[in-house]
Amino acid sequence: MFFEVVKEDARTKARLGRIYTAHGIVETPVFMDVGTLGTVKALEPRDLSELGAQVVLGNTYHLMLRPGAEVIAAAGGLHRFMGWNGPILTDSGGFQVFSLARMRRITEDGCLFNSHIDGHEFFLGPKESMAMQRVIGSDIAMVFDECLPYPCGRERAEKSVDQTIRWAQVSRDQPHADGQRVFGIVQGGVYDDLRRRCAEELAGMGFDGYAVGGVSVGEPEERMYQAVDASVPYLPTDRPRYVMGLGVMRQMAECVARGVDMFDCVIPTRIARHGTAITRRGNVAVKAARWAFDQGPVEEGCECYCCRNFTRSYVRHLFACGEILGLRLLTIHNVWALNRFMKEMRAAIGGGTFSEWKEQTRKETEENE
Amino acid sequence: MFFEVVKEDARTKARLGRIYTAHGIVETPVFMDVGTLGTVKALEPRDLSELGAQVVLGNTYHLMLRPGAEVIAAAGGLHRFMGWNGPILTDSGGFQVFSLARMRRITEDGCLFNSHIDGHEFFLGPKESMAMQRVIGSDIAMVFDECLPYPCGRERAEKSVDQTIRWAQVSRDQPHADGQRVFGIVQGGVYDDLRRRCAEELAGMGFDGYAVGGVSVGEPEERMYQAVDASVPYLPTDRPRYVMGLGVMRQMAECVARGVDMFDCVIPTRIARHGTAITRRGNVAVKAARWAFDQGPVEEGCECYCCRNFTRSYVRHLFACGEILGLRLLTIHNVWALNRFMKEMRAAIGGGTFSEWKEQTRKETEENE
Repeated sequence: MFFEVVKEDARTKARLGRIYTAHGIVETPVFMDVGTLGTVKALEPRDLSELGAQVVLGNTYHLMLRPGAEVIAAAGGLHRFMGWNGPILTDSGGFQVFSLARMRRITEDGCLFNSHIDGHEFFLGPKESMAMQRVIGSDIAMVFDECLPYPCGRERAEKSVDQTIRWAQVSRDQPHADGQRVFGIVQGGVYDDLRRRCAEELAGMGFDGYAVGGVSVGEPEERMYQAVDASVPYLPTDRPRYVMGLGVMRQMAECVARGVDMFDCVIPTRIARHGTAITRRGNVAVKAARWAFDQGPVEEGCECYCCRNFTRSYVRHLFACGEILGLRLLTIHNVWALNRFMKEMRAAIGGGTFSEWKEQTRKETEENE
Repeated sequence: MFFEVVKEDARTKARLGRIYTAHGIVETPVFMDVGTLGTVKALEPRDLSELGAQVVLGNTYHLMLRPGAEVIAAAGGLHRFMGWNGPILTDSGGFQVFSLARMRRITEDGCLFNSHIDGHEFFLGPKESMAMQRVIGSDIAMVFDECLPYPCGRERAEKSVDQTIRWAQVSRDQPHADGQRVFGIVQGGVYDDLRRRCAEELAGMGFDGYAVGGVSVGEPEERMYQAVDASVPYLPTDRPRYVMGLGVMRQMAECVARGVDMFDCVIPTRIARHGTAITRRGNVAVKAARWAFDQGPVEEGCECYCCRNFTRSYVRHLFACGEILGLRLLTIHNVWALNRFMKEMRAAIGGGTFSEWKEQTRKETEENE
C-alpha cells in the first residue's frame, strides 16, 4: 500500500492519511519543507527531524544545474548526498524553467533554456526531468508540466493543458527509480472545465498521487480555492492530493477542508532569513525597534529551540548585526511553527473537531492581520 | 580556589590545570572560541557544548556598540542574553579601539574614538571598559591596555608600557561583577626588558591571571615566542597565563611548552566561513574542484557532526552555491578540530608524553604546509 485514508472528518472533506515510502511513513495532512539545493536553507538533517519535518522537497531544476546529475549519482542519490534519510519529493523543474530561466524555445519534447546561474544552455522536458529525478532517487517524482501564469487567456490555457496532459503521459512512461512513485499535476488556470478535464485525464492514467498546480501564482485567494474545487472532486479518493506552493496556515486549513493532503512552500524559510517570524497571531518583523528590550520569546507558548532559549531582544540583536545565528533561529522557529500547526490540524481531524479548529484558526489570524 | 596546577610536564614547562569559575570548571590548556557579538558565528550554545568548547570570549568593544550596555543589562548579563551557561571571558576593548575604530584622541583616562559601525563618538578607558565588563558579567575580565603594533620603536613602546601599567591599576581598582576575576596584560612589544618590567609590575598588583598581549600582530613567529619567553617567567606560577589572539595548532603547542594555559583566536571560525577546513595535516580549501566527487569526509578520522555525516563533495557543493549550511558545517568542524587538539594535548601532558606529542604534531604540520 502507498496511501491510506485513516479517518475522514464528518462535516468536511478533511481527511487523515498515511503515505508509505521507502524512507518512512508520512502523516497527512503534511507541510513539506523546501530544500532547493540539497539543503533546507540554514538547517541540518538532524534539525529537520527535531522540528517535526516529514518530507523534504528537492528542486530538480536547481539540482540539475548545481551540483548536476553526475555528482548526485556519485553519492548514490540525494538522500545520501544531503544526509537526509526521510522521504524526499522532487518537483519536475517545470515551474522553475517557466519562471526563473530564460526560455529559448518550447517544442513537443520540452524546453530549451538558458540557466539563470551562468547562461549555460539546457534542454528540459518530461524525459530529461524524469531521468534527473531518477538519479536523485526521490520517493515521489512529479511529472513535467507547464505552469501557467495568472492571468492567462482561455486559448493559451487550453493548448497548455493539452501539452501538460501529453507530458504527463510521457513522464509516466519513463523508467523510474526503485520504489519511486509518480504524481500527476492538474493545470488549467482559472477555467473550471479545463481543470476538470485535466484531472479526469490524469486520473485515467493512474498516477500514485495528484497535485493541483498553477495556484498561488498571484491570483486572488478565492480564485485559488475555486481552482482546488474544480480539480479535487475529479481525482481518485484513494490517492494523496497535493496543492503546490502553498504554505499560509489559514489557506492550508481551507484546502484540507476541500480534501487536500499535502502542501509545500518556500516562504516560511525565506521570510525567516529576512527576519520575519510566523506565529499563530500573524507574521512578526523581528527587527522592529520595539523588541530591543523584550525579554519574551519570539512566540509565547512556542516550544521550539529558539523560543525555549532566546529572547526577542537577543534575536533582534542578531538580525541587527547580520549574524547568521539570527536567521538560523528564525528558520528553526518558522519550520517548527508550520509543522506544529499541521500536527494540531491532524489532531483536530482525528478528534472530530476539525471544523471548530479551522474556524478558531481563521478568527485568530484575521484578528491580527 | 580559582586556579589549580594539576600536573607539570617533566621535561617542559607545560602544565595541566583547572580554572574554577561560577559557570563551571575549565580544563587547561584551553582554546577559547570567539563570540564577538554574543554569538560564536553560526553556532548555538548547544553546539558549543557538543563541540567541547569550554569558554566563550566576548568582545567588550563590539558589545558596547551593539546591542549596548542597556540591552545586556536588561537581560541580566551576557550569559542570559546569549543563552550560554558556561564560562565567559571578555577582552577590554583596547585591541579593537586601536585597530578598528577611528581614534580621535588618547588621554590619561582613555580614548575618544568613532565607532566603526556608524561613526558615533565614544569614549573608552579603563573605567568605561570595566563598567561594561561588569554589566556583561563575564567570569574573567581583562584590564584595559594599549596593544602596540609591530614594528614599534623603543620610545613609543616605553611610553605605552607605562600607560598600560597605569591603566591596569585603574582597571583593577574598579568595582567588578560578583565573582568576576580580572587578568592583567603584559605588553612591551619586542623589547625583552620592557616585557619583563611590565610582567613584574603587574604581578605585584596581584591579578587573578595574566595575559601576554601584543603578539600575533604580524611579527615573525620567532619574535612571538621571544615575547612569550620574555614575559611568562616573571609571572606567578599559581595563576593562569593566557596568550591572546593565537589559534594555530603548532604555535599553541610551542606556547604550552613555555608554560601558557589559555588561548583564543577568531581565525578558526572566520576561515570556516570562507571555506577553509583546519585539519591535522594543514588547512584545506573546500571549494577546490578536485573535491567535486570526493566521497570522503572533510577530515579522515574526525568525529565531528560534519565529518560523520557529510562528504567533501556535499560540503563543496554547499560552498559553491553559497548555502549557509556550508559555513555552519565547516565552523562545526574547525571548532571541534581545535578543541579535540587541546584535549589530545592535555592527555599527552597528563600521560607524560607531551614532548613526543608536540614533536609529532610539528612534523605532521610541516609535512603538509
